[in-house]
Amino acid sequence: METPVVRNLLENNDAGAAQLRALFTQHGVVVLNIIGSPGAGKTALLERTFRDLGGTFSMAVIEGDPQTDNDARRIVAAGGKAVQINTGGGCHLDAALVRKALDGLDLAALDLLFIENVGNLVCPVEFDCGEDCKVALLSVPEGDDKPEKYPLLFNLAAVMVLNKIDLLPHTDFSLERATRSAGRLNGNLVTLPLSCRSGEGLDGWYDFLRRLRKNKTAGTRAPAGS
Amino acid sequence: METPVVRNLLENNDAGAAQLRALFTQHGVVVLNIIGSPGAGKTALLERTFRDLGGTFSMAVIEGDPQTDNDARRIVAAGGKAVQINTGGGCHLDAALVRKALDGLDLAALDLLFIENVGNLVCPVEFDCGEDCKVALLSVPEGDDKPEKYPLLFNLAAVMVLNKIDLLPHTDFSLERATRSAGRLNGNLVTLPLSCRSGEGLDGWYDFLRRLRKNKTAGTRAPAGS
Repeated sequence: METPVVRNLLENNDAGAAQLRALFTQHGVVVLNIIGSPGAGKTALLERTFRDLGGTFSMAVIEGDPQTDNDARRIVAAGGKAVQINTGGGCHLDAALVRKALDGLDLAALDLLFIENVGNLVCPVEFDCGEDCKVALLSVPEGDDKPEKYPLLFNLAAVMVLNKIDLLPHTDFSLERATRSAGRLNGNLVTLPLSCRSGEGLDGWYDFLRRLRKNKTAGTRAPAGS
Repeated sequence: METPVVRNLLENNDAGAAQLRALFTQHGVVVLNIIGSPGAGKTALLERTFRDLGGTFSMAVIEGDPQTDNDARRIVAAGGKAVQINTGGGCHLDAALVRKALDGLDLAALDLLFIENVGNLVCPVEFDCGEDCKVALLSVPEGDDKPEKYPLLFNLAAVMVLNKIDLLPHTDFSLERATRSAGRLNGNLVTLPLSCRSGEGLDGWYDFLRRLRKNKTAGTRAPAGS
């Protein structure tokens, strides 16, 4: 990421992200950029969120996927609204791609907008999409060493969702190690252990979303780390 | 990946990879490029391989990691030889990085060289590192839809290692769906279900390595898909 070409790319993206952020603020919509490995449970978390909070909030998802529209179809099956971006093999979303996806959405009608990024702990972190906050989604089977290995994500995220805690008894994952090393990177990081499969811990995630929404409508800033 | 800059980058990389491939052939070393998500078990597979085949083959690992040398230290603790490449946040290895890492290795003394790529199912696939074959390492908790979502990897790999089969009873993963959809992308793909944790299925992986080694010393080509 050190070449001049890449630097220009990131600067252009930052300008596009600032425009998006202004647009989101103007419409009072809270935007979360969800970043995690392939299979960490990004779509599963959104499916649960749409099923459980669909009556409370007006929500939509921008789905980034290198190839298929499988995830968008899962969101629609859960009663949600999804706009698909196929990156054609590309490894992250950026402000320009998100901007294009907005054509399919009525921002004024939304309370919450989720950006489900491409499954990847490196590239998506570098590209601001105008979000209020980044969500680092880590799953138990990936191992408790991931905050150390991918520090930028955990440094910039407002929240670390620890999914698949139903698998804790079958792995060597230490909640304490993951939380401690992520906390060293980011003292303001909120940690939310949960299981999209069993439903355990989802209330904490829903409370987090309600707080974000409340802060936004009250005109206060999104949580630190955003 | 469609801009002229990226195209030039890939063409330059292909030239570097061709030089590496000639060098590896000259020294008769079999090179495997291991690609998988963060936490899929790339290092765990190599730890087991060094423990179990360390007396049979002379082996080394080039470790790609965005930040830490944790994985290299795990390989050394398993009795292996590891050369660390920190990509400084970069999302994949390329031929130039692998070339630099060779300074730390005596190729003539090696039977097998593993390249442990950065945890990522997208970017590493595009950058040939002169390997004999790519190993697609997928783990059960990631879900059986990954071959469909990341087709290029499964299309180009010679083998799909399905790790963490000890977690099959605790997930919805269908071995049949994963194998079928990967097989549609690549009719020659070898599928090896195993668990680095329990040891189940590792013999199949070791047989695969022995066959690769035998073919290389016999001067025949590496398996299809390489």
